[in-house]
Amino acid sequence: MSGSIVVVGMGPGALDQMTPAARAAIETADAIVGYTTYLKLIADLAPGVPRARSGMRQEVQRINKAVALAAAGKRVAVISSGDAGIYGMAGLVHEVVAERNLALDVEVMPGISALNGAAALLGAPLMTDFAVISLSDQLTPRADILQRVEAATKADFILCLYNPKGRKRVEPFALTCAILEQHRAPDTPVGVVRAAYREKQHVEITTVANLRDADVNMVTILIVGNGRTRIIDGKMVTPRGYGEKYELAER
Amino acid sequence: MSGSIVVVGMGPGALDQMTPAARAAIETADAIVGYTTYLKLIADLAPGVPRARSGMRQEVQRINKAVALAAAGKRVAVISSGDAGIYGMAGLVHEVVAERNLALDVEVMPGISALNGAAALLGAPLMTDFAVISLSDQLTPRADILQRVEAATKADFILCLYNPKGRKRVEPFALTCAILEQHRAPDTPVGVVRAAYREKQHVEITTVANLRDADVNMVTILIVGNGRTRIIDGKMVTPRGYGEKYELAER
Repeated sequence: MSGSIVVVGMGPGALDQMTPAARAAIETADAIVGYTTYLKLIADLAPGVPRARSGMRQEVQRINKAVALAAAGKRVAVISSGDAGIYGMAGLVHEVVAERNLALDVEVMPGISALNGAAALLGAPLMTDFAVISLSDQLTPRADILQRVEAATKADFILCLYNPKGRKRVEPFALTCAILEQHRAPDTPVGVVRAAYREKQHVEITTVANLRDADVNMVTILIVGNGRTRIIDGKMVTPRGYGEKYELAER
Repeated sequence: MSGSIVVVGMGPGALDQMTPAARAAIETADAIVGYTTYLKLIADLAPGVPRARSGMRQEVQRINKAVALAAAGKRVAVISSGDAGIYGMAGLVHEVVAERNLALDVEVMPGISALNGAAALLGAPLMTDFAVISLSDQLTPRADILQRVEAATKADFILCLYNPKGRKRVEPFALTCAILEQHRAPDTPVGVVRAAYREKQHVEITTVANLRDADVNMVTILIVGNGRTRIIDGKMVTPRGYGEKYELAER
């Protein structure tokens, strides 16, 4: 009797932004394990399937619970907001299963990540190369983070910044603003997206010069334009290069 | 009478990896515009909606067709494989609409991108910061691409490489291998994914030392691990750092 774990990227939270494959994985599970806030977003889904909730920063306990259920033969769905494979629960599940020396089948079901959602709501900022960086220094040394911000900024990557600012963790954001001010034009567009596809969705476009004053918190995603990014009809767009090689409009 | 355009990220191609929102956008359109190969993947969807097909490298003509239909009052779905917002059609639609001075409503519907799909099939490689780079030098100068590869490699980003190698375009890939050989350990895992969630899906894990000989083409996605990435039970996993801060298994 061997159970299994499917780590499900539930997307931003709106059910119409969750893939049928992810939904099916949740609906056919014997148990659903997840962070309380995310379980609320899928409260109406699979009402008959029991849930194991846990709070923030309880990730390791949560995964141990999921692994114990799977080891007892259950098919367990571990839910992760966005894409479980991008800063999500997928890695920790693999780590814990290996640490406990269990031969459990682990599958990952992709979802619409915060970066997919933020880019869609802003326009088309990610048409050329981009770097994705979490500014949370809880698990990554701050010096490594800032070195990546600087390297990506200098190499003209578009930047997608996760976890930009916590209530008490404001310094990595301030230092990132300083790096951007030094290497990017002041009017470079920066997209600010919170709660994409949820009730309290907030989308605005500011600039590198005004980024320090933007309303930014842990669940905000920032997309910083590169040297080509511009505003077209109120949207943030990075032309990929077609305009230089082709006539855009047929005449 | 003003039409609209919705740029739809159809995901990898399998219908169960397409969000209900994306599917609804296709099913409620007056016309579907897309690259012939991708239209084949959704041949069974919305059979009553007329389609305008066009071949590879016909992107600008295709978008002009879509814009003309929208300007005539139609609700047009432009389909893009993966996420329309990541190297997809979203940017070009905004550019063409602006170039033609039209006030058309343009919306982008996110999808499961190639990087979401590849990461899920490989395990959990994207648990920490990553850089996404296209090795196609058709629209981006080769020197810029290689500068980004080098900067991202040195700053210990995980790398997601799109369009790694064309039939005639092999040099950027060879030069990228050389950069990786210089700055990453030879046994660093590299995930090779083709046709994720499609009939001919191919997933393998090789190493930086063997990457030159990997079977890589235009539709392959490569995910190059960073200094922390390792193989756990046959999967490619980048621990995010929990293992150093917490006991992974409850004892």
